[in-house]
Amino acid sequence: MLIVQKYGGTSVGDLERIENVANRVAKTREKGHNVVVVVSAMSGETNKLIGYAEHFTSTPAKKEMDMLLSSGERVTAALLSIALQAKGYDAVALTGRQAGIVTDDTHTYARIESIDPTAMQNAIKEGKIVIVAGFQGINKNGSVTTLGRGGSDLSAVALAGALKADQCEIYSDVDGIYTTDPRIEPNAKKLDTISYDEMLELASLGAKVLQNRSVELAKKLNVKLYAKSSFSDNEGTLITKENNNMEAVLVSGVVLDKNQARVTLRGVADRPGIAAEIFTKLADANINVDMIIQNMGTDGLTNLGFTVPHSEHENAKKLMETFDHEMEGMDFDEHVCKVSVVGVGMKSHSGVAATAFTVLAQNNINIQMISTSEIKVSMVIDEKYGELAIRTLHEAYGLDK
Amino acid sequence: MLIVQKYGGTSVGDLERIENVANRVAKTREKGHNVVVVVSAMSGETNKLIGYAEHFTSTPAKKEMDMLLSSGERVTAALLSIALQAKGYDAVALTGRQAGIVTDDTHTYARIESIDPTAMQNAIKEGKIVIVAGFQGINKNGSVTTLGRGGSDLSAVALAGALKADQCEIYSDVDGIYTTDPRIEPNAKKLDTISYDEMLELASLGAKVLQNRSVELAKKLNVKLYAKSSFSDNEGTLITKENNNMEAVLVSGVVLDKNQARVTLRGVADRPGIAAEIFTKLADANINVDMIIQNMGTDGLTNLGFTVPHSEHENAKKLMETFDHEMEGMDFDEHVCKVSVVGVGMKSHSGVAATAFTVLAQNNINIQMISTSEIKVSMVIDEKYGELAIRTLHEAYGLDK
Repeated sequence: MLIVQKYGGTSVGDLERIENVANRVAKTREKGHNVVVVVSAMSGETNKLIGYAEHFTSTPAKKEMDMLLSSGERVTAALLSIALQAKGYDAVALTGRQAGIVTDDTHTYARIESIDPTAMQNAIKEGKIVIVAGFQGINKNGSVTTLGRGGSDLSAVALAGALKADQCEIYSDVDGIYTTDPRIEPNAKKLDTISYDEMLELASLGAKVLQNRSVELAKKLNVKLYAKSSFSDNEGTLITKENNNMEAVLVSGVVLDKNQARVTLRGVADRPGIAAEIFTKLADANINVDMIIQNMGTDGLTNLGFTVPHSEHENAKKLMETFDHEMEGMDFDEHVCKVSVVGVGMKSHSGVAATAFTVLAQNNINIQMISTSEIKVSMVIDEKYGELAIRTLHEAYGLDK
Repeated sequence: MLIVQKYGGTSVGDLERIENVANRVAKTREKGHNVVVVVSAMSGETNKLIGYAEHFTSTPAKKEMDMLLSSGERVTAALLSIALQAKGYDAVALTGRQAGIVTDDTHTYARIESIDPTAMQNAIKEGKIVIVAGFQGINKNGSVTTLGRGGSDLSAVALAGALKADQCEIYSDVDGIYTTDPRIEPNAKKLDTISYDEMLELASLGAKVLQNRSVELAKKLNVKLYAKSSFSDNEGTLITKENNNMEAVLVSGVVLDKNQARVTLRGVADRPGIAAEIFTKLADANINVDMIIQNMGTDGLTNLGFTVPHSEHENAKKLMETFDHEMEGMDFDEHVCKVSVVGVGMKSHSGVAATAFTVLAQNNINIQMISTSEIKVSMVIDEKYGELAIRTLHEAYGLDK
């Protein structure tokens, strides 16, 4: 098999941990596999460099930031290659450029445009373990670019796609995807398999293991993705195409997102374009709106609700006050949270949402907002009931079994 | 004018010092000059990275070391560019590759083969201050290479040559070239001007300000080189072509090299090839031989003397014992030092060497070995007289005037 492995900052956080990663890579190699390894900067390194830049200005040029930040991954890649060579393995370290990664011009948040895998393929043919500095590429002018936070995951998935690798393993300090946060529900179970779409819903809902862009790309390129821990030998979770087997499982996970504040606009004048104006204003202020719910009020007036991150609550409030004359009233609440139930099984099974509403009601938890997609039910509730709701839902769907 | 400035590790040792360098570059810019700045890694950074690599093996692959070590200069280049931008200057940071530096394949000690200055020239035309990460380039295969210790000086001189810059300023924590080490002779004077050849002799004799390879390259490319301090506004020393004015100065400096051990082989059988055998043996053992002196002994036997670094003394001794049967005797002394008198004026003035021998004799300092070149007289003496000899010679040639 050809396996792409990606090790995050915590997994390569110090020299002992890099040694540990070298042992893991070596073990994979010993099983007869070809291995391409993508590495992040040693944990803390990127923040240290950002701190350096911010000593001079709070708005350093993005082109310079890319040159600065891309150095961290190069260091790890070179060190891991040296560690493997010291163990007698033939390894070669490549920068993003040398690995053939070409991106667009969007410094600090570049998109991968193309990958020329020739250099990697040649090294693999020569029997080498290939180590690639993650998070980086070059644009058409030859300037160094970086892919944004979590960019090394993206590098790994993109390389796996370009190399037509059999699988792509993302290593972190968590050993897979869980039915819910084990810190909230000790009976949370690790999932063996989950679909790309479920993972996308879980990631956007607060599961920090895999970044959304990476899962999207894996889905697009049909890369078999494993979430694994670099500190254990557990099997991890396979993120892959939806299959019939999966649909038998009603719900894969329940997630709590506490970083939510609710805005409700009551009796909004129902003139064409009012919603567009409101959300354009929020977007222009770089406020990320999460849930948006609109339904009819009385007398042809409409009610509009949405949630924003906690940190944007005050800003959103100020912006909304400029629409004061166009509505009956507004209502803000920063003491809310969002609980979500995710599962591809919902597509073919009815009653999943009803179960959620029922068990929350049984626990006297009032649901303030509801939003659903094909494979997800999200509910905004009072934040003090967040953990209780998660435990209740987890049990209701039999996720602890 | 187009000025290339190079700032060493101490000059960019922390964020405050990078800020200081930014101010110096800005000041040069304000005078109406175009500036290309070459920077080293922040002091300590390169050694830290070497330490990381040596955690895994004492013999890390040189290709990997180049990828590892080249990251340090990239960080400084990006930070200096950010610091200048924060002050309102238009600056751009380039890696060695982006600056167009192509080297041979000798990783960790590469030679610059060509420079394509187009990117730098375009940036200069756009009114930008160009910051280049020193010490690095890429080879024809696109792998990162580094130029060896002192490589940033070499980058600066090579770029100055390729850009046909008006001058190249090398900044360190020393404000120029002195007639001798001020720690030995407090009356040492800073030289305004010195020739490339004199500088080459001084550098190889222990003056640490400028690396020999850089001075050689400056001579070859006819780059006007200034040695200056980044911590003062002193004028520094100009290293340039020899001119008539210089020849009026008899002696430019006197230097002490304490890292010397003497080996004398007496009554060596004068068969063809014996010297070649001896020095091949030393070279094979990577022992750097400095002075070599041969003269006739009695009965057609020859006497052979040479010096090696202190650390190689024991090794040299062991190797020489294998020639025991081919000579009358051998003599080792690690308590010696070498004092040298350097000056282009010697070419046209006789008596320089005689003065040295006379004043040392007046001070009862016995000269064990003498070696001369066109512009240098070197003498091996008992190490306890080293400082006294330097002070005596410094005064004898009127260097304190």
